[in-house]
Amino acid sequence: MTRIFLTQNNYIVGKFDHNTQKILESIDLARQKECSLIVTSELALLGYPPKDLLYYPSILAECEKAIENILPHTKGVTLLLGCVRKNPGQGQPLFNSCAIITDGKLVDYYDKWLLPTYDVFDERRYFAPGKKTKVIEHDGKKIALSICEDIWYDQLDNLYENDPISEIYSSHVDFLINLSASPFELHKLKQRISLCQNISHKLSCPVLFCNQVGGNDSLIFDGYSFATDSDHLLGMSRGFIEDSLIFDSEKPLAAPSLNYSDPEQLYNGLVLGLRDYFHKQNFSKALIGLSGGIDSALVATLVSKAIGPQNVVGISMPSRYSSEHSIQDAKSLSRNLSIELLEMPIEKVHQSYLDIFEAPFKDLPEDVTEENIQSRIRGMILMAFSNKWGHLVVSCGNKSEMAMGYATLYGDLTGGLAAISDLTKTQVYAVSKWINAKKEIIPASIIEKAPSAELKPNQKDSDTLPDYAILDQIIVDYIQEHLEPEEIAQKNKLQIELVKEAVRKIHLSEYKRRQAPIGLKVTQKAFSSGWQLPIVHAHHKD
Amino acid sequence: MTRIFLTQNNYIVGKFDHNTQKILESIDLARQKECSLIVTSELALLGYPPKDLLYYPSILAECEKAIENILPHTKGVTLLLGCVRKNPGQGQPLFNSCAIITDGKLVDYYDKWLLPTYDVFDERRYFAPGKKTKVIEHDGKKIALSICEDIWYDQLDNLYENDPISEIYSSHVDFLINLSASPFELHKLKQRISLCQNISHKLSCPVLFCNQVGGNDSLIFDGYSFATDSDHLLGMSRGFIEDSLIFDSEKPLAAPSLNYSDPEQLYNGLVLGLRDYFHKQNFSKALIGLSGGIDSALVATLVSKAIGPQNVVGISMPSRYSSEHSIQDAKSLSRNLSIELLEMPIEKVHQSYLDIFEAPFKDLPEDVTEENIQSRIRGMILMAFSNKWGHLVVSCGNKSEMAMGYATLYGDLTGGLAAISDLTKTQVYAVSKWINAKKEIIPASIIEKAPSAELKPNQKDSDTLPDYAILDQIIVDYIQEHLEPEEIAQKNKLQIELVKEAVRKIHLSEYKRRQAPIGLKVTQKAFSSGWQLPIVHAHHKD
Repeated sequence: MTRIFLTQNNYIVGKFDHNTQKILESIDLARQKECSLIVTSELALLGYPPKDLLYYPSILAECEKAIENILPHTKGVTLLLGCVRKNPGQGQPLFNSCAIITDGKLVDYYDKWLLPTYDVFDERRYFAPGKKTKVIEHDGKKIALSICEDIWYDQLDNLYENDPISEIYSSHVDFLINLSASPFELHKLKQRISLCQNISHKLSCPVLFCNQVGGNDSLIFDGYSFATDSDHLLGMSRGFIEDSLIFDSEKPLAAPSLNYSDPEQLYNGLVLGLRDYFHKQNFSKALIGLSGGIDSALVATLVSKAIGPQNVVGISMPSRYSSEHSIQDAKSLSRNLSIELLEMPIEKVHQSYLDIFEAPFKDLPEDVTEENIQSRIRGMILMAFSNKWGHLVVSCGNKSEMAMGYATLYGDLTGGLAAISDLTKTQVYAVSKWINAKKEIIPASIIEKAPSAELKPNQKDSDTLPDYAILDQIIVDYIQEHLEPEEIAQKNKLQIELVKEAVRKIHLSEYKRRQAPIGLKVTQKAFSSGWQLPIVHAHHKD
Repeated sequence: MTRIFLTQNNYIVGKFDHNTQKILESIDLARQKECSLIVTSELALLGYPPKDLLYYPSILAECEKAIENILPHTKGVTLLLGCVRKNPGQGQPLFNSCAIITDGKLVDYYDKWLLPTYDVFDERRYFAPGKKTKVIEHDGKKIALSICEDIWYDQLDNLYENDPISEIYSSHVDFLINLSASPFELHKLKQRISLCQNISHKLSCPVLFCNQVGGNDSLIFDGYSFATDSDHLLGMSRGFIEDSLIFDSEKPLAAPSLNYSDPEQLYNGLVLGLRDYFHKQNFSKALIGLSGGIDSALVATLVSKAIGPQNVVGISMPSRYSSEHSIQDAKSLSRNLSIELLEMPIEKVHQSYLDIFEAPFKDLPEDVTEENIQSRIRGMILMAFSNKWGHLVVSCGNKSEMAMGYATLYGDLTGGLAAISDLTKTQVYAVSKWINAKKEIIPASIIEKAPSAELKPNQKDSDTLPDYAILDQIIVDYIQEHLEPEEIAQKNKLQIELVKEAVRKIHLSEYKRRQAPIGLKVTQKAFSSGWQLPIVHAHHKD
């Protein structure tokens, strides 16, 4: 009988004492549960991703010290611990490693082979690739080790020259263990399971996948650690929360059901990402500008769930162009959520700006300038409260707006964190309706009315943008699938000029995204560190 | 006799027709100068760096089409052309290549071996490494090819596993050619020359280094293409401007003098970076908030040089806390530069904000909130003029402020481009004094007075920050040299607490830098794409 304990912890990047404590608690719990093999997620000691902190020698030193501190607590057990170690040879100075600790001694390391360097990943920036497989013996069983990307060779279309899993084949192991820090994105879980089931089939043994949980900057790690054979899940921990999974080779668990809807997954991911940003950055309270529109309504709902409605302050900032129904909708929402609502009309400040610009703008027609002034006044009011009270401003722009540049720099793009900047408007509606399915939280009138920025009389988003159903498809096809405008037009039966104009706007608004708050990534391609376009270029800008 | 023509052109990323035209003009000029071998810089056809544009299939297709268009123009000559090509095998889908084109035919490629993936470079994200050396014959001479990083093996402390140059050794070549896109940074030119002279010594042949020139986003390419033997430069093109170098194996040129001062190099680099951002982004005019302080004075001077003083509008935005001398200094500066100066006092708007916050901030002490309001009003005024007139706002923060977070988000951090965000305050003074050495452009009173944000009565930077001479050393040691606080304290004989507090501020202000405009990189380590720190982490934050 082999009992393996997968630890699914929420680590803080660079907080070695905190992370060590988590790991020690996991070891204790594993012992109580009669498990003698304990597995952490990738880089557990440091938290993932440490990024350029890895350039500082103290990170390696702290890592080595933390391992020393953990050793005495491993009597009688084996711990597979994600950490960095020094590369003694040629290449980048570090390995992304798994320390193999047995009975109080550090006996060996396994070094990650495949170093993802695409999308949000930049591991070639820091790490040298490992070149040796590692099979340990435990309770008479042969267990092969792998770290995250090491199992993704087959999925990645010839991206890597070697497949570490193929190298393991001839060892005839009893289990394959994978230490991961695999970020959440829609549909990723099913991909991970299918991948591991294929590998289980190849190696003729169960695969154990141990994932990190928790939010770090833009990335949300969803957990869902699991064990699987080639056909069935043999157990899975919960998603979006700290948990652990005990795998007993003789008593595999019943396969959990995987009937998560997309909106539910997005909701859970965003709530975790928000909660962790607040907690890890030591913010306890949130400020949200409530326009009466759907985006801010959804954000207020998510933040209320993440940190509690008593910690959320909504600010309604009506202007001369705000509709009465929008003001009322913001009020109804606040009541439904039980959050505080502050009203700060912007008319007086708005007029003071119009006064000082009267002379210099004389004889020039009204344009986007006047709209942006209102949006920026709101940004300034939010920031003033943030500065005075120490609350974090959560910004409310969605991915469709971010793509089109349909947002005001220093206006509605103000904030420390963008909650829904990776949700298209279509997804904003889907998640909002999912929230309302049990009970109406977001007033129906907010969901039903036509989207408007309300920055001039009778304005509607559709005056400027294509229908969101069409636009969002273009955005996904261009941003995520890297299709060319001609392909997008053909695939979706759209006029090529419409697609080209949307793509042009995506490129022309790059400078805005560069100055936007970081946003939570929940899809395959977000406008975050995984989107690295130049500002100055001429491609598709004509 | 071999005559080789090195083309030092200013390419626009993704503008294939423009770049092709430049290359065709170079071929014509080379022919006139009786050169039959023409060398471009790295990725000349695309412009460097194309970044995630490389994920779009149209980039490779456009590149192939452009090569087809160039072929007929190469009768009787050989062209070594920087481009991408498809990788037919395992690994990333593209090579960073040099097309070898002879007499109207594309005869072969050389693929770059060493793919820098550190600082601002991320070539492993896109390219597979080449694995073959390439020696061509031309006029009976044997010429080896290399691309940029391929010659940097020796400098990079075991970073790479192979050294392409060592592999060339046994071929006994007559010349080594290097196609580069090597960005400017202070002292980089001397490093390049010394590197190439060492290689020339190893290979016993001259080395020809062909560099890109021009600004693209944060990066400034300085040109200075050169030929060298192991001891002497055999010719060098000019820096910071389009140029070419003709290398005649029998008539090497006299070695140019290299007596460039640091401030002069910084000045020339920044002027080029500014000019190209304006031109390539289709902006003709600039807006600069003139506080009467040294930072905005230097920026106005640089921008005036870059795009002409007739295209620069300074805006003075005095508040109740602005000193009379600051207002006068802004006026004198504008006169000296012959730029337009607009005055927009902020008192009226300032008071309107204080009015609306009177009730909610009742009983709360004044703090940074009230300072930020003034700074943000100025940002809004600049942006309103920018929106109305279509001028680009150039932001004026320096590296010392950026490091400390001594800047207001959506306030003085407003703008499309940060001109001097990679100059420490010490360097700001050095460049300003260098400018004034010939003739007083920046009023002496601006240089002599103590730095102040003037956001409350009698405020001075030194109330909040250490002396800049000390602070700037800490910043360079931590940011660029990756020294730990203890080492910095020891090296500079400083109190450890002072250093720790500065390092702590660097990390705590990361969120501000993430939302700052992109800034021109002129040192080894700028807060640009080469600085990738997490916001959420705990390292050195205690």
